[in-house]
Amino acid sequence: MTYKLVLLRHGQSAWNNTNQFTGWVDVPLTEQGESEAKKGGQLLKDKGVLPDIVFTSLLRRAINTANISLDAADRLWIPVKRDWRLNERHYGALQGKNKAEIRDEYGDEKFMLWRRSYATPPPEIDVDDKYSQTHDPRYAGIEVPRNEALANVVDRVTPYWESDIVPELKSGKTVMIAAHGNSLRAIVKMLDNLSEEEIAKVNIPTAIPLLYELDDNFKPIKPRGEYLDPEAAAAGAAAVAAQGQK
Amino acid sequence: MTYKLVLLRHGQSAWNNTNQFTGWVDVPLTEQGESEAKKGGQLLKDKGVLPDIVFTSLLRRAINTANISLDAADRLWIPVKRDWRLNERHYGALQGKNKAEIRDEYGDEKFMLWRRSYATPPPEIDVDDKYSQTHDPRYAGIEVPRNEALANVVDRVTPYWESDIVPELKSGKTVMIAAHGNSLRAIVKMLDNLSEEEIAKVNIPTAIPLLYELDDNFKPIKPRGEYLDPEAAAAGAAAVAAQGQK
Repeated sequence: MTYKLVLLRHGQSAWNNTNQFTGWVDVPLTEQGESEAKKGGQLLKDKGVLPDIVFTSLLRRAINTANISLDAADRLWIPVKRDWRLNERHYGALQGKNKAEIRDEYGDEKFMLWRRSYATPPPEIDVDDKYSQTHDPRYAGIEVPRNEALANVVDRVTPYWESDIVPELKSGKTVMIAAHGNSLRAIVKMLDNLSEEEIAKVNIPTAIPLLYELDDNFKPIKPRGEYLDPEAAAAGAAAVAAQGQK
Repeated sequence: MTYKLVLLRHGQSAWNNTNQFTGWVDVPLTEQGESEAKKGGQLLKDKGVLPDIVFTSLLRRAINTANISLDAADRLWIPVKRDWRLNERHYGALQGKNKAEIRDEYGDEKFMLWRRSYATPPPEIDVDDKYSQTHDPRYAGIEVPRNEALANVVDRVTPYWESDIVPELKSGKTVMIAAHGNSLRAIVKMLDNLSEEEIAKVNIPTAIPLLYELDDNFKPIKPRGEYLDPEAAAAGAAAVAAQGQK
């Protein structure tokens, strides 16, 4: 028995485009992002990788990427589960700020630390900041973070993976997770058993399905999985790595 | 305790536009249909009618109407349940056929019988017809109908209403059902306890949210509910009634 998992990072969002830290701010996809999602869905269809269930975060850029890609793959009708634990990393006080400006203001070292350190979170956001989610009704009943490092994302994604995603894989379903750069990196780190240094170098391109086939022990048969369009994925990962450059 | 239910018929689909019988054929929304869905969502937001959970059929015109309207209402993140029992009535051998041509070929009487009779279904579709859903993977494990009358739709919607929708209403959630002319008429017939003659005259306009507030016994506080835009709803219902005219 092997299990099939598809990871899909959302397409370009309004703030990818304007180079702002997004985190939990619920910005929409751009037209380019919608078009990327559609291409991603055509890849699923062309390669015969057909999800039986989809998991999403609570953020519209991931939800709409799932919807548009599944529509293109003729799989819009599959069951859906959404959970905040698949949300992007909370970028704290950086949310809404321009990446290049933050780099200028705080210098390369802090900028790279906040972007790529495993355990050092950015400064906390004020609960009354317009980009805080403390009062957002979708998070009623949960303690909304004021900032997160990747380590915090791993800590929230892992139990959700175990409780909700693993049982669907075990039942034989092809599972798709439509989410974000950092919630997907948390899953990649776990699946491939990467060190903190190794995961720092992983860049996930937008809207190109990443297929993992997993063995009985949920170990990837091919380490790091396989992008359904490897060339476009390499170019996309390089573009992600270059973000924050002027 | 009152319960809140929102019924939303999908926006204009490709075959509404070309005047073809659609039924279970999975045609997309037109651009106009997408724009109607967006307006429907803005009505939800403007009137403060905010769904906590959405139910859809397995057909993309209903699913995308739900998605577009919920995105416009800032509620795209709510839980979703999909079920074939909310599908449109199966139009049997009429699926794919032009309504005006069927009217010419079979005459007014049969045409109106097939469209509006409570218990007389249209002729059965051949299981190998290109517009049959017998081999569609989304219906694996269910007996796909070869035709349906409204009575058959009532018979499948009612148990689903009881088992899946009523418990969500009872828990205090505002429930939205994004579905089709006939699956929604089945619900209206049940809620308002309409006779077969009465439901024959009910036309539900596209993409205008219909709000029902229900008392403890699930009886509508205002019979027939309330459209969030009553004027547009009246015009829309008249347009639906005129369908099939040349």
